[in-house]
Amino acid sequence: MSKIKLGLIGLGTVGGGVFKVLQNFPDVEITKIAVKNIDKPRNIEGLDRAILTTDPYEIVNNPEITVIAELIGGVHPAYELIKKAIENGKHVVTANKELLAKHGEELFNYAEQHNVVILYEAAIAGGIPLIMPIKTILAGNKITKIEAILNGTTNYILTNMDENQASYETVLKEAQELGYAEADPTGDVEGFDSAYKLTTLATITFNKRVKLENVYREGITKIKSEDIKYANELGYKIKLVAYAHIDENDNADVRVHPMFVSKDETLAHINFVKNAIALTGSPVGKITLSGAGAGEMPTASSVVGDILAIEREYGTTDYILPMMRCKHAHNTVAKMIPIDKTENKYYLRIIANDKIGGIADITEHFAERKISIESILMKEIKENNTAEIVIVTDKCKENSIKELKNDFDMHSCVKELASMIRINC
Amino acid sequence: MSKIKLGLIGLGTVGGGVFKVLQNFPDVEITKIAVKNIDKPRNIEGLDRAILTTDPYEIVNNPEITVIAELIGGVHPAYELIKKAIENGKHVVTANKELLAKHGEELFNYAEQHNVVILYEAAIAGGIPLIMPIKTILAGNKITKIEAILNGTTNYILTNMDENQASYETVLKEAQELGYAEADPTGDVEGFDSAYKLTTLATITFNKRVKLENVYREGITKIKSEDIKYANELGYKIKLVAYAHIDENDNADVRVHPMFVSKDETLAHINFVKNAIALTGSPVGKITLSGAGAGEMPTASSVVGDILAIEREYGTTDYILPMMRCKHAHNTVAKMIPIDKTENKYYLRIIANDKIGGIADITEHFAERKISIESILMKEIKENNTAEIVIVTDKCKENSIKELKNDFDMHSCVKELASMIRINC
Repeated sequence: MSKIKLGLIGLGTVGGGVFKVLQNFPDVEITKIAVKNIDKPRNIEGLDRAILTTDPYEIVNNPEITVIAELIGGVHPAYELIKKAIENGKHVVTANKELLAKHGEELFNYAEQHNVVILYEAAIAGGIPLIMPIKTILAGNKITKIEAILNGTTNYILTNMDENQASYETVLKEAQELGYAEADPTGDVEGFDSAYKLTTLATITFNKRVKLENVYREGITKIKSEDIKYANELGYKIKLVAYAHIDENDNADVRVHPMFVSKDETLAHINFVKNAIALTGSPVGKITLSGAGAGEMPTASSVVGDILAIEREYGTTDYILPMMRCKHAHNTVAKMIPIDKTENKYYLRIIANDKIGGIADITEHFAERKISIESILMKEIKENNTAEIVIVTDKCKENSIKELKNDFDMHSCVKELASMIRINC
Repeated sequence: MSKIKLGLIGLGTVGGGVFKVLQNFPDVEITKIAVKNIDKPRNIEGLDRAILTTDPYEIVNNPEITVIAELIGGVHPAYELIKKAIENGKHVVTANKELLAKHGEELFNYAEQHNVVILYEAAIAGGIPLIMPIKTILAGNKITKIEAILNGTTNYILTNMDENQASYETVLKEAQELGYAEADPTGDVEGFDSAYKLTTLATITFNKRVKLENVYREGITKIKSEDIKYANELGYKIKLVAYAHIDENDNADVRVHPMFVSKDETLAHINFVKNAIALTGSPVGKITLSGAGAGEMPTASSVVGDILAIEREYGTTDYILPMMRCKHAHNTVAKMIPIDKTENKYYLRIIANDKIGGIADITEHFAERKISIESILMKEIKENNTAEIVIVTDKCKENSIKELKNDFDMHSCVKELASMIRINC
């Protein structure tokens, strides 16, 4: 078995974890590590400070190094470093979801041209085995649907709101204090992080290039305790779902938004910071993979798995990891279905003036737009003469719901469409 | 990409599925198929009857064939056929859990000697990606615990008993009518099937040879509706769990028996014929993989995944699938902890004579055996002057529970220890 020489770019949370785990694998030599600050105190056993450098180009240009692991995140300078490493014939392992979502196509093609691989298990769902299984043991399948929880912060917030009947604001603050949410939580709570991951996941799963700008995205900031309460009553949990579907004509529907998920689904029971991915395909049916989606050690598991995959095959052949190669399969751009054209079931929470004939008025709007109602609840007469009405629709066009919302705006009996949440079905 | 020539042994449920799926992969040529009865009508599109044979040795001795897929199950003649195929330099894909549990060590060593691989994703948990992920992307981990539902029939029965408050006998009969249980259900309901799968899974996960005869096994036939009712009250579901743990000193505890599983665990929500495997290790933490554990198409997914893994690397190197090889890692036999020496929490359902001081009498026995009680319930006074008492213990030695059972037998206040079920914790 040949020894490989690894250059590590970044020695933060994930980088530190990778360093620790690799101490058990003497066939991988860590030759050089690029850090921001060499003098920063680091609690990493076995670390020889002589291999630290502040110049990551010392790694990507080092002819001795055969594999680089890029663990700094963000688009720049990761993009430039990875391109240079590829040019220099090095295999690349990365945990960089944003970079792959924005420049994956170019980078994968570039790697193909230079006869190296880019592996990225850690970029999507942390420690959960996902990319390599899709590329290897599931290779006989046509996978047509992804339903996933890819962001731990938002799942933590939603689980806490559910278990403690607390408001979004209260739980976010607590999550920030515990370090589960950042001071500026936008990247997580508005769904950007999930959208980055889903862009790459849908691309490699469907073998069609999905572009980040075509991924519809809504966050969780508008979810109210009332919605979670009604979800439970109706047999659902609210989750921020990364959803993707491709039909027989290769039309892809790829989006991130809150969803009602039936309690009969494993996904509904994935709580707190855990992530999960349900894949539906033929012949395998539906499988669900779950576990820690982030964190030092789980993410290190995936980075090290990728590094070892290269190490085990390195030098034994000039054809490394044939199943993990892209072979330009992703270069056909998926035809996208815009959100307005999708069909969904909807949960609608309506605040209405409490008057005789009010429900008739409101449901008349549904009939006009040809939206079939599956169930209706009117539970509380609220203060100031208003009623809260919850309606679950049958499957209908998103566009019809938009029209319905306009109708409501024009008519006085509806004070407000307080919530509109799509139902996973 | 090189074309491989495949010989299929068996064209039943799984074999038929494999044939269908492989129609999408022209790089795999199905050269010959061994069947019991050539003239049997088969609803398989694209099947050329000229490639059928009733003599499987025409496959294992055919010098053109590079890979065989053994899909007949059972020990004989699968054992002889696979040995002959290995001798003749063919790679082997098998779904045969019983054969691997009983002769895995010999066969894997034999394959090593002859420089071929045996792949067996389909032998454990049907379509769920498990073996290949453990060997590849999780290779950086030391996995120390397996908690799994590996048998769909028993999980179907337990889920149905739970959802319909039905007895074991009623549900078994229904399962037999629906084809989910066999006419002689022993292999499933007594845990043999799970034990076969767990034997191989624990071996490859812990990298220590676990022997089938050392796997403790109990089935589900003694589970009563009352136990399921109490489980729910206490926050658990009853599952037939395939459990394995290895400690820092390489002592292994491997067993199959019913368990109380906390509703906080994903495993508790795996219902009907679904399977799931929770793996706990470092650095990955706990991951849970779930999906269809049996059936024509899910199982075909795994068989085809294994075949494609060989096909993709075949001819490009003389070192096929380096991560999937055994490299004698399993040849050290695990030191086993016998069930009596294990520590567990227990659920005990006791039928006692209803008399003043009865509970004091009974709990006194626990104190004598130094078994700490976590909770106690006495809900119904039954007919004929008896009471039903449910006790949940803290962690204690299995042996202490055996002694307690003897104590009960000697004392008149306890009429019967009606149920003893271990609690997963």
